[in-house]
Amino acid sequence: MSFKTIEWKDDKVRMIDQRLLPDQEVYHDYSTSKEVARAIKEMVIRGAPAIGVAAAMGIAVGIRSSEAATMDDFSGEFNEACEMIGQTRPTAVNLFWAIKRMKIFFDANRSAGIESLKDLLKAEAIRLCEDDISINRRIGKNGAALIKDGSTVLTHCNAGALATAGYGTALGVIRGAVESGKKVKVFADETRPFLQGARLTAWELMKDGIDVTVITDNMAGYLMKKGEIDAAIVGADRIAANGDVANKIGTYMVAVLAERHSIPFYVAAPLSTIDMTISDGESIPIEERPSREVSHIKECQLVPDGVGIRNPAFDVTPNDLVTAIITEVGVVKKDYKKGLDKFFRG
Amino acid sequence: MSFKTIEWKDDKVRMIDQRLLPDQEVYHDYSTSKEVARAIKEMVIRGAPAIGVAAAMGIAVGIRSSEAATMDDFSGEFNEACEMIGQTRPTAVNLFWAIKRMKIFFDANRSAGIESLKDLLKAEAIRLCEDDISINRRIGKNGAALIKDGSTVLTHCNAGALATAGYGTALGVIRGAVESGKKVKVFADETRPFLQGARLTAWELMKDGIDVTVITDNMAGYLMKKGEIDAAIVGADRIAANGDVANKIGTYMVAVLAERHSIPFYVAAPLSTIDMTISDGESIPIEERPSREVSHIKECQLVPDGVGIRNPAFDVTPNDLVTAIITEVGVVKKDYKKGLDKFFRG
Repeated sequence: MSFKTIEWKDDKVRMIDQRLLPDQEVYHDYSTSKEVARAIKEMVIRGAPAIGVAAAMGIAVGIRSSEAATMDDFSGEFNEACEMIGQTRPTAVNLFWAIKRMKIFFDANRSAGIESLKDLLKAEAIRLCEDDISINRRIGKNGAALIKDGSTVLTHCNAGALATAGYGTALGVIRGAVESGKKVKVFADETRPFLQGARLTAWELMKDGIDVTVITDNMAGYLMKKGEIDAAIVGADRIAANGDVANKIGTYMVAVLAERHSIPFYVAAPLSTIDMTISDGESIPIEERPSREVSHIKECQLVPDGVGIRNPAFDVTPNDLVTAIITEVGVVKKDYKKGLDKFFRG
Repeated sequence: MSFKTIEWKDDKVRMIDQRLLPDQEVYHDYSTSKEVARAIKEMVIRGAPAIGVAAAMGIAVGIRSSEAATMDDFSGEFNEACEMIGQTRPTAVNLFWAIKRMKIFFDANRSAGIESLKDLLKAEAIRLCEDDISINRRIGKNGAALIKDGSTVLTHCNAGALATAGYGTALGVIRGAVESGKKVKVFADETRPFLQGARLTAWELMKDGIDVTVITDNMAGYLMKKGEIDAAIVGADRIAANGDVANKIGTYMVAVLAERHSIPFYVAAPLSTIDMTISDGESIPIEERPSREVSHIKECQLVPDGVGIRNPAFDVTPNDLVTAIITEVGVVKKDYKKGLDKFFRG
């Protein structure tokens, strides 16, 4: 992979601007928590695991410039940074998971003193980023067995290297299958309104030499009916304790169609995406994003002025439509409640 | 309605250019069959009933400038025009229905002589256009009873005034319900790739003061699951004898989702859309359109160069997902084979 979604570089957080891909490969360097929070909110970076990494790095980079003289003041600034990052996007739980991890780490290392703690927080954020890549490789390995040689797989949105620190979750499984010697073709839903599929999934799979064909979101049913799709695989923004899956808007439609055509529907996600505090998907908050994302593509206006627009960014797929959830510690099938619980109890 | 989709004006065929709406209201005047054929193929005009009207007018306008001296030569030119128009778009049967109607009319009036026949063909094409509007008003009246007061209706693509000579089929039913005093809100799928929903349905409903909200195609499932949609209504490009419905790509997905949520799924279309020569939807030809419609919006590139693209323009919804078919002669429910057959046997 010839790009990095996010990295710590020269004590700044460097991200590729995913709003401009694939036309332009532009990198931004951020040195404050506020800048990183804005980048998350405006979707310079997106994808649940990548948002988690950005959150940790955003906190660590912001607090480096603190001039606090006492641990109480330093702790106050740290909490403010956490608060600011936490208010960017409500659905992906990896954001809150990463903030929590940084908070626990902070508390465990208070005694090190302010300057050392700055370095420790930086190291922890970088570790979280590196962990994400190795977790994704394990997801890929665990999921590869589910993808048959010679099969065509539908994916929705981008759950790839660009949605993570690298390698990807759903695309990690596809990469894992390809690395194990299987031939796999991919259909990528374009994924309106942000076009993560058309712009990002197509771009990164093409870079890897994986056969990818873009379709509009409303073509998946047609292709399933014609027998051209053997499996569907997506990432997740939050998975409830019962296996209900919040993911990019349109995922639910893919799952309903997959069920109708007896096509397996897989979800690939790290444990950090699983929210065991939420019993089912109904209580997952669904972000509504600005209407301009629907009404315009770049400067091109699609919807006439004065017309109403809705823009829910995610939907929830009930667990009964999910064939398996693929994580770094293993693959779980129904009953999800039991299976997921086992993962967390070790 | 302050615009005309298609009309015969000063011995030319005038069409509003639907590729440019809603940004620009541009009208083109065509005086040859070749020009009209190209306008149909390039989607200056679209929508099954409108294509039928365009076909009839395209034949009539082309043949007016014939310099044939014998009826045999004139008949040859007429058949060439029919042939050319018939090769534009394969799915909507109204095209072939209109050509057949013109051919039968030609044969019945051969004895009138060349110059009179030119005028008679013109009059027949204008009559076909006027008929279409009155047929749509009857569809609207027949369907209005199915739309409950205070309900929210989802529609896909544009089956409105712009898809017909005027008033519309699916939107005709919505207009009929509104004219009968009911309050109706509309969700319009944007309908990628050509964006008939975002651009055309939104535009013409707003002009009529009907409450319309645009969503991307992949949001319909989310809204149905939340209970925000009471009914779905679409038009059709071809209906087989058993009630299978070919319509704009994505219609099938709406129908599958409607069934899952026990939401009625209605199809509104004139008898000219029903193809009794085809027993079921599997034998309806599905047009694949140029990939640029998916990869670009105007000059804006969405998909990186080198990535595969599919662009089937229609899909087939099996009759078991259709709650009712609304025509100008009445509403038919299962069993469609029997019900449709009755319509055609009088």
